[in-house]
Amino acid sequence: MNNKIVYTPGPTDVRENVRLARATKTTNPDIDKDFVNFYKNTCDKIGKIINTKNDIYILSGEGILGLEAACASLTEAGDRVLVIDNGIFGEGFKDFVSMYGGEAVLFSQDYKKDIDIKSLEEFLENDHNFKYATVVHCDTPTGVLNDLSKICPLLKKYGILTVVDSVAAMVGEELKVDEWMIDIVLGGSQKAISAPAGLTIVSISKDAKNIIKNRKSKIIGFYCNLSIWENYYEKKSFPYTMPISDIIGLDKAIDNVLEEGIQSVLARHDKIAYATRNAIKDYGLGLFLENGYSNTVTAVKIPENIGALNLSNYMLENYNTLVATSLSQYKDKLLRIGHMGENARIDKILNILNTIDISLRKMGFNGKYNLVDRFNKYYK
Amino acid sequence: MNNKIVYTPGPTDVRENVRLARATKTTNPDIDKDFVNFYKNTCDKIGKIINTKNDIYILSGEGILGLEAACASLTEAGDRVLVIDNGIFGEGFKDFVSMYGGEAVLFSQDYKKDIDIKSLEEFLENDHNFKYATVVHCDTPTGVLNDLSKICPLLKKYGILTVVDSVAAMVGEELKVDEWMIDIVLGGSQKAISAPAGLTIVSISKDAKNIIKNRKSKIIGFYCNLSIWENYYEKKSFPYTMPISDIIGLDKAIDNVLEEGIQSVLARHDKIAYATRNAIKDYGLGLFLENGYSNTVTAVKIPENIGALNLSNYMLENYNTLVATSLSQYKDKLLRIGHMGENARIDKILNILNTIDISLRKMGFNGKYNLVDRFNKYYK
Amino acid sequence: MNNKIVYTPGPTDVRENVRLARATKTTNPDIDKDFVNFYKNTCDKIGKIINTKNDIYILSGEGILGLEAACASLTEAGDRVLVIDNGIFGEGFKDFVSMYGGEAVLFSQDYKKDIDIKSLEEFLENDHNFKYATVVHCDTPTGVLNDLSKICPLLKKYGILTVVDSVAAMVGEELKVDEWMIDIVLGGSQKAISAPAGLTIVSISKDAKNIIKNRKSKIIGFYCNLSIWENYYEKKSFPYTMPISDIIGLDKAIDNVLEEGIQSVLARHDKIAYATRNAIKDYGLGLFLENGYSNTVTAVKIPENIGALNLSNYMLENYNTLVATSLSQYKDKLLRIGHMGENARIDKILNILNTIDISLRKMGFNGKYNLVDRFNKYYK
Amino acid sequence: MNNKIVYTPGPTDVRENVRLARATKTTNPDIDKDFVNFYKNTCDKIGKIINTKNDIYILSGEGILGLEAACASLTEAGDRVLVIDNGIFGEGFKDFVSMYGGEAVLFSQDYKKDIDIKSLEEFLENDHNFKYATVVHCDTPTGVLNDLSKICPLLKKYGILTVVDSVAAMVGEELKVDEWMIDIVLGGSQKAISAPAGLTIVSISKDAKNIIKNRKSKIIGFYCNLSIWENYYEKKSFPYTMPISDIIGLDKAIDNVLEEGIQSVLARHDKIAYATRNAIKDYGLGLFLENGYSNTVTAVKIPENIGALNLSNYMLENYNTLVATSLSQYKDKLLRIGHMGENARIDKILNILNTIDISLRKMGFNGKYNLVDRFNKYYK
Repeated sequence: MNNKIVYTPGPTDVRENVRLARATKTTNPDIDKDFVNFYKNTCDKIGKIINTKNDIYILSGEGILGLEAACASLTEAGDRVLVIDNGIFGEGFKDFVSMYGGEAVLFSQDYKKDIDIKSLEEFLENDHNFKYATVVHCDTPTGVLNDLSKICPLLKKYGILTVVDSVAAMVGEELKVDEWMIDIVLGGSQKAISAPAGLTIVSISKDAKNIIKNRKSKIIGFYCNLSIWENYYEKKSFPYTMPISDIIGLDKAIDNVLEEGIQSVLARHDKIAYATRNAIKDYGLGLFLENGYSNTVTAVKIPENIGALNLSNYMLENYNTLVATSLSQYKDKLLRIGHMGENARIDKILNILNTIDISLRKMGFNGKYNLVDRFNKYYK
Repeated sequence: MNNKIVYTPGPTDVRENVRLARATKTTNPDIDKDFVNFYKNTCDKIGKIINTKNDIYILSGEGILGLEAACASLTEAGDRVLVIDNGIFGEGFKDFVSMYGGEAVLFSQDYKKDIDIKSLEEFLENDHNFKYATVVHCDTPTGVLNDLSKICPLLKKYGILTVVDSVAAMVGEELKVDEWMIDIVLGGSQKAISAPAGLTIVSISKDAKNIIKNRKSKIIGFYCNLSIWENYYEKKSFPYTMPISDIIGLDKAIDNVLEEGIQSVLARHDKIAYATRNAIKDYGLGLFLENGYSNTVTAVKIPENIGALNLSNYMLENYNTLVATSLSQYKDKLLRIGHMGENARIDKILNILNTIDISLRKMGFNGKYNLVDRFNKYYK
Repeated sequence: MNNKIVYTPGPTDVRENVRLARATKTTNPDIDKDFVNFYKNTCDKIGKIINTKNDIYILSGEGILGLEAACASLTEAGDRVLVIDNGIFGEGFKDFVSMYGGEAVLFSQDYKKDIDIKSLEEFLENDHNFKYATVVHCDTPTGVLNDLSKICPLLKKYGILTVVDSVAAMVGEELKVDEWMIDIVLGGSQKAISAPAGLTIVSISKDAKNIIKNRKSKIIGFYCNLSIWENYYEKKSFPYTMPISDIIGLDKAIDNVLEEGIQSVLARHDKIAYATRNAIKDYGLGLFLENGYSNTVTAVKIPENIGALNLSNYMLENYNTLVATSLSQYKDKLLRIGHMGENARIDKILNILNTIDISLRKMGFNGKYNLVDRFNKYYK
Repeated sequence: MNNKIVYTPGPTDVRENVRLARATKTTNPDIDKDFVNFYKNTCDKIGKIINTKNDIYILSGEGILGLEAACASLTEAGDRVLVIDNGIFGEGFKDFVSMYGGEAVLFSQDYKKDIDIKSLEEFLENDHNFKYATVVHCDTPTGVLNDLSKICPLLKKYGILTVVDSVAAMVGEELKVDEWMIDIVLGGSQKAISAPAGLTIVSISKDAKNIIKNRKSKIIGFYCNLSIWENYYEKKSFPYTMPISDIIGLDKAIDNVLEEGIQSVLARHDKIAYATRNAIKDYGLGLFLENGYSNTVTAVKIPENIGALNLSNYMLENYNTLVATSLSQYKDKLLRIGHMGENARIDKILNILNTIDISLRKMGFNGKYNLVDRFNKYYK
């Protein structure tokens, strides 16, 4: 099962030192105060990477846990919530909002473009009575990247809290939580951070904590309740047994980022994404997006007579290589190249581009150039 | 942080092959169908161990996630729920019940004894209008073991579904889910199964699934919603990205149990627990319980002039050994010896008993015998 | 130190399951009879791969230990030994021969070609009074492959024992020890077997054992004395403490070969070597050899104005990639592409060819084609 | 095979961080200059531990390789060599001496005592025409420890070089190479250093190097020739491919020693050995030695009616525990408790003493006390 060449927009390849860290014997996370410090220290390092002094928590559960926890903790019956929607995951937030009794108001835009700030401004001028807004940083099914540096301060100006899903962007795209005034940011361990899936990262502002504290109704649920983490450090106690082995792995992945330097990591993503996009275009395939290209994932249009699913099946059967197409309406239309985290490495992208190239040729699509050759051209 | 000798009632020691399995490279759990089969196979093996043909799910989250998920999925506003309470965790179920709108009715009993079946029978004769009942198999803070073979069929006779928290018992105590007609059983990876914390095990009956399917109101929440797992295998798709590395580790831990044989594993727990209890008594310390001794954890009364917290601190400072006291009212009264899973090994229990012995002597309590010597006497 | 991309003709990349096997706790190899069986079983599996029923030993030491041990064990003062020399390692055997008192007679041939059987036949007709002959299967510094299927039976016809250095060929090239009547074959763990360096593999025939048994003088030395291994299995005892952790790793590497199937492994080497050689030629670089191309290593002539050392330095400095040039007179003339064992993988060879291509272009040598593109052309 | 509880005088338990270090991907040790520095650094750290500025080499092979290499490198035909013999390994040196043409002169003493300095002085007054002398630091089969601080300077006074086998003592016993003027010291990776078997450690003085340089005859052999290591660092080149993965493990084991502090490590050995010896005596068993007790291994006399081999078999069959008896004439007479390196840990020694205790009782020997209890008494 595990001998395949995997190149998807998450879970990404996990570096050896992270994997081996996961294999070490551990202390007891419930009663060893050393672990509380260790956990806090990991959180602080994440804060450094995403440029915030806000509290950070690591939750035991997949990234979606954070999205739900933010909505569960903020939403009270009848609350109006702005759901900014230019992608499948963007729209998906409406379910969490309504599940907890809120009224989701969608601001929907072209899925081929990032959120147009002017349009949002105009919308907000007319309607800004929202408790909070949800935004997706990078919407993985299509790879569109939204400009949080503009969106979040704008919402804040209207007193609207922001909940940002940065699961597929964090560490691969710049994230300045404090400067951009983001209230709740959500990340996952398995994307550009390149640790295994199973952990959710939450950054939460004082404003968000106050809103939660001053709710009129109780939060429904415990596992998705962010307020249970309040003052864990002072109390030296967690709401439940922490997955210490996973966190030790995450900590090592974070150290890898810090050791390389977050700016170098971002530059590495940028260089590879840039060369990939241009190589794809020269080759004769189209990109799904018209603008708002993320550096973590590139969605490539696959000609209808080939089909994205056929292509991915062909690569699996003939080259033991696992790549992802997309979701819902894009399932058979887009191939996604997930050059994030440890996948944003020259040897890996080269191999995947070459496998795409030779597979397409065998399936009857003749690219104008050798794809690796084009990549070389744009990769500096 | 991780160089301590740890001997607590979970998380338990994780065997080397489980730890190394966690370090391997993996496939992509979202799109690789081989993983769906792997996951299913792990679940089937768990079913074999707990004697059930019910569906089994492995959730990404700590054991408490399962407890909440069961209550969240079953409870509708106004539902009456019987909370069987002879321990701290037993009573705790009432919070989950009321959180989701149910009315928790407590059947409370002496915390020093297991549930008396006759008393429960009498109670039910008078009042049995409950949608479901919650029972704790082994209540870790005191170690009391309840006789599910009597309790669950009795409840079922009245048409009451049973939700059993077997987190601290599963694999260390016999569990015959089908024979005992248990509707939902919850386990955790980090107790007698001896994998790291971070995974919840759920076994769910057709009756429970039907009750959930026929709810009048929607389940509040996604992460704690058991119905999202329905037919995952047929759909070859999971509700969220599975923590594959953790599951590979769990699978290996389950293999360890199957290889040793569940009956041998249970016998190993029994022999060590029996010798421990008797050695403790001969030595001159008291057991907290009067009956209902579990084979996974033994709660030992520590003389007031010593104090359980002082003793555990002494062991940590002088012998680098981490043991647990208990919770709430028992925090400074009980020392808990957690001889479950990989901790139920001769070399580990011997060392911990000896450390307790020499620590107590240095703190002024002179046991009547050498504690290891007494253990030897009863260990066959 | 260890974060480089390494692509050399050994030590080769070590697969994860081999590396993790090296990390496991072990029994005591001196007194645990289970280990004797384990060791024997590993040897038997190697025998299966190299097609022999001869005794096989695994020695604690680098491959050269085996070469010396063969010469030390066979050579007595004054013995005439035929040293077949068409490469640097081939010639090197003469030192071991004379060190132990033998008279080394060289049969030297063009280093650009494999041994010409007719010439050897003619030579032997005139002079065949040799106790044994030494032959190198694949001479790594130039990559020349000698046809053992012809050479060894020919020597045997004259009653000359054969000592074959197959360190750089075993598992990457066919080896039929019994059919080809090879008396002593030597292998190393770190080449096509793809385990770490540190172990020597020896296969020894009855004829060779008899010659050793009937020596007139004692063997000088213990560590290089092959007779100390005689009957280790019957005696359940080794001459010294076996490096059990290394052998457990080797065993897993051997299992990897058997699981893939030795014929598939050989085919994998053949396909990659073939495509590499032809891609290199189309690209405009020359191969060192005129015939006798091995499938484990390809020696490429680097234009003088570039220089092999300059090229390898450039690749290290700019692409963090470690490749080998050659030895002695070829040090600055040849770049060696070591596509053996786990290095004979598509993703790895592609990346290295691409790095060679872009490096050469930046250094001023413009290949006629994109090198990966040419590789694709020949790789079926 | 590997699930046994192993407690022998080497190979000892290997700490997790050493084992995991062995599992990491590595660079190429032949051509990566970073590795030469890494190797040198490991050697320097060993030098710090054994208090020397002499050159240190790590050889690829089991400890006996070093013993032979020292003799092979120093001995010329006819050389007189003093073999100091108060143990099985001490006497064994005579074979290496004569193998390489030397004349071994034995200074044999009571095997139950360490070397008596006065007797040696008297001996040397009469006969001191020796090129070098061999001494065993701790002779493992009986555990006798010789006082190098007296023996080596005494020999040096007579111009006799010293070759010390410290395989079973290094890191467990004090070793001041420079102060005690030891010319060649030999160690192994698998004893108190607690790395796996497979590496030899050699420390060599200028005097020894000069003697080797000025030999009249060539050294017979390459693998056992210490002069091939000369100036490896300046040349950035090793005589053969270094077992880098093993050395990375050794380096971590050495770091473990340095982190704990060599004085603490020695004190840990001393405390455990002292308590073990006294517990054994109180219990009613005899020690083999009359003086010269090493802190790395304790040889215990087993009553004839029980038999050491019977006892060890009983422990293996009933408690899955592997302990060593001894060699040759002591094979059935002595049980050896190897409390060295990572085995010199409280939890491990307690368990082994308890297993010995209960096994002996079941076999009919009733110790006067509980053995763990006695150990507690003497362990401070």
